[in-house]
Amino acid sequence: MARNIAPREKDYSQWYLDVIKAAELADYAPVRGCMVIRPDGYALWESIQHFFDEAFKDSGHVNAYFPLLIPISFLEKEADHVEGFAPECAVVTHAGGEELEEALIVRPTSETVIGHMYSKWVQSWRDLPILINQWCNVMRWEKRSRLFLRTSEFLWQEGHTAHASREEAVEETLRMLEIYRDIMENVLALPVLAGEKSEGERFPGADNTYTCEAMMTDRKALQAGTSHFLGQNFAKAFEINFQNREGELESAWTTSWGVSTRLIGAIVMTHSDDDGLVIPPRVAPVKAVILPISPDQEMVEGKLLPRAAEIAEKLNAVLGKRSVKIDKNFHMRPGDRFFASLQKGIPLRLELGEKEFGKEVLHAVRRDTGERFDIPWDEVATRVPEVLEDIQKNLYEKALAFREKNTIHVTGYEEFSKIFEGSGGFVEAFFAGGREEEKKIKEETGATVRCFPLGREETGTCFYTGKKGARLAVFAKSY
Amino acid sequence: MARNIAPREKDYSQWYLDVIKAAELADYAPVRGCMVIRPDGYALWESIQHFFDEAFKDSGHVNAYFPLLIPISFLEKEADHVEGFAPECAVVTHAGGEELEEALIVRPTSETVIGHMYSKWVQSWRDLPILINQWCNVMRWEKRSRLFLRTSEFLWQEGHTAHASREEAVEETLRMLEIYRDIMENVLALPVLAGEKSEGERFPGADNTYTCEAMMTDRKALQAGTSHFLGQNFAKAFEINFQNREGELESAWTTSWGVSTRLIGAIVMTHSDDDGLVIPPRVAPVKAVILPISPDQEMVEGKLLPRAAEIAEKLNAVLGKRSVKIDKNFHMRPGDRFFASLQKGIPLRLELGEKEFGKEVLHAVRRDTGERFDIPWDEVATRVPEVLEDIQKNLYEKALAFREKNTIHVTGYEEFSKIFEGSGGFVEAFFAGGREEEKKIKEETGATVRCFPLGREETGTCFYTGKKGARLAVFAKSY
Repeated sequence: MARNIAPREKDYSQWYLDVIKAAELADYAPVRGCMVIRPDGYALWESIQHFFDEAFKDSGHVNAYFPLLIPISFLEKEADHVEGFAPECAVVTHAGGEELEEALIVRPTSETVIGHMYSKWVQSWRDLPILINQWCNVMRWEKRSRLFLRTSEFLWQEGHTAHASREEAVEETLRMLEIYRDIMENVLALPVLAGEKSEGERFPGADNTYTCEAMMTDRKALQAGTSHFLGQNFAKAFEINFQNREGELESAWTTSWGVSTRLIGAIVMTHSDDDGLVIPPRVAPVKAVILPISPDQEMVEGKLLPRAAEIAEKLNAVLGKRSVKIDKNFHMRPGDRFFASLQKGIPLRLELGEKEFGKEVLHAVRRDTGERFDIPWDEVATRVPEVLEDIQKNLYEKALAFREKNTIHVTGYEEFSKIFEGSGGFVEAFFAGGREEEKKIKEETGATVRCFPLGREETGTCFYTGKKGARLAVFAKSY
Repeated sequence: MARNIAPREKDYSQWYLDVIKAAELADYAPVRGCMVIRPDGYALWESIQHFFDEAFKDSGHVNAYFPLLIPISFLEKEADHVEGFAPECAVVTHAGGEELEEALIVRPTSETVIGHMYSKWVQSWRDLPILINQWCNVMRWEKRSRLFLRTSEFLWQEGHTAHASREEAVEETLRMLEIYRDIMENVLALPVLAGEKSEGERFPGADNTYTCEAMMTDRKALQAGTSHFLGQNFAKAFEINFQNREGELESAWTTSWGVSTRLIGAIVMTHSDDDGLVIPPRVAPVKAVILPISPDQEMVEGKLLPRAAEIAEKLNAVLGKRSVKIDKNFHMRPGDRFFASLQKGIPLRLELGEKEFGKEVLHAVRRDTGERFDIPWDEVATRVPEVLEDIQKNLYEKALAFREKNTIHVTGYEEFSKIFEGSGGFVEAFFAGGREEEKKIKEETGATVRCFPLGREETGTCFYTGKKGARLAVFAKSY
């Protein structure tokens, strides 16, 4: 067991922070609630970005950049929006040595300023749809922060689209939700429930919010990404109007959707173990590390390192540039070098010692199972990708099995409460309550409606109100 | 001539803004001095980023992310630094509904907060060098802004490295300058002078600043990127100390270097013409546009579009995903469609009308020269890349010839002054003056020392002070 990491079963919060620290993913910054994303954390973010960005572009979206600072009056144009975000805002009052006439907020999200610009860009139905995404930093002031999960500043993408019809905007909202689900499951190996948020959990200013909810290994839910149907709320507040094909003036229909550096927290809390970080191979910036090991420096320089370089080149050609690293920490003991690669979450360790050199193999060790086996040099280009795919599959299946094991269907409130007094989990229940009932359930049990999962259209008797025809909801405690 | 673009010779400033507007690269934002980078401008920035990012990574650098907000006290730790940047800062005084105990500045540059973090990460010589780069937004409040050249918020990369020796840090400073020069010349087709800044033009807090200076088509200089040798100034201010191999405590040596969205302004002002934007092919997000043209909708749907799609696929396989666009603005007149692709700066237009369809060719039109010629369908995969490379070469050579034509060597101040009363340009002169002389020359002529170019080590008599052994300097008016 790692001495620098608290056991997960004993102290989950400490384990989480220790895993991040040991993997050098992030540090707290000198400004309260802010973080520094260290190189290995940022490389993981770049890899995550790559998959989402490609999917956005393949589905016809383009990137742009809108300003960081937003006039405070913009926020006030949408009533629910200002109520939701004003308390979390950081405010610029002075600039260029002078007090500003109007204070500016550091964007907590950009619906308002983007709405303002869209109103200038849209005149006719021919200007629609606008399908823009932005990768940027946002600021939501936090009293109690937690690396990657809740920090005053974080990085994200925010998609903002405008459409000529309600149907098209709803379709877009669901299309992006599905893109999120697909990448989360198939790249990040995070099984998620894609579903609709309850009224109380909606984005401030949205008509409807959809979400992807993942279960962490402490059985709490993490909202991994959301997609909002904003109706005409922002279009009306910011006058995004267009002439339709009949020449009549209409308000546009808008959507917004986002995922953030929080996904790194989701990866940590889904796959990692008491030894430290585990990264699913498809999203891992470094997919395998080759460790040349010998006390004989001549052997290392003359034979092991050149062979390692050849193999790395061959693997990089298959797995992508810079996917394979050669560990050269020869001043460390072999055990410490193994351990360092473990804690970094690298999916596959490939040892190359004198014995392996003689047999013309690499000794492979899987990060997920600890399984060990030799791979002949002339088979690395096919075997390594196969093993990585198997690790990917295994991590997903393990996470899915964990969620299924910890998902319980209940029909009554007593049973419901007991679960959240105990170890928790996802609780499925038919639910017909509104904001008030949700609030009460949260106060009494700590659990909230995570979503009404899509594709589960059955109805039944509400476990809380007894009403008939209630929708199936999933409850959990959450981050 | 384009009716929506002022002639360059008549009103250079207006021409510049008109080109940007016609190409939809950027817009002014509702906050004074800030800009919105529109999708086509942002795609150009992403392309620029790609080349620099790959070069940084290939030379051993890694990316990370440091916080946006910096305690104001950090800025004050380096005396020159605070003097240089304090007047331009935007200041956050309130957050989370409360007044902050210490005001925070929105980063104008990150030497201070990164220095603070490095002091925690560095203990031993084994922790060095640290080779980190950050892509982010920065804020320097501007009274008079100009899209891409001078805006209160802009996007950039800032590299920050720490080293165990002075030599290594100087080497890094020059390595990054050379990477900048290489990409600017070979990708952006911007001929640049790489050189050392004079004392008066140094980065606040640097021991030495190096720069790449490009000549715009109004003969003014644009500082396209800088690389700073920071000595031990920031290491001492932020206590970046390490134990050397002998066990003694030393201060590290640091560097920083950056290029920004300003490069987009440089591309506009180097290559564009009275018809609008011209983008060099290697950096162009869209390298060619195929225009199916026919009044016969059946012809368009049944023959031209499918053929265009096939050709685009073939070209994208060679030039990179999404490099070729198919124009489907069939509601516009052909002339307007040609014109739109011209104004977007797309290097090559490929027309596919009924005539071309019959001959199994595309009718190609070069953006740089207007030259027209047919390319047979079965030769596109080789011919189009060749033509693009030729456009790239031509743009670079044209810009270089322009700079050479407008570079004059002078030996006396009268001659010098006359040049800057006239059309200006780059003026080479031996110069031995200091801050005072530079200031006076600027007041009298508007020109400043852009750099002492590297690789031009000859010395001579100072044109201003008459001192012997003066270094060769290049003067110009600048952005």
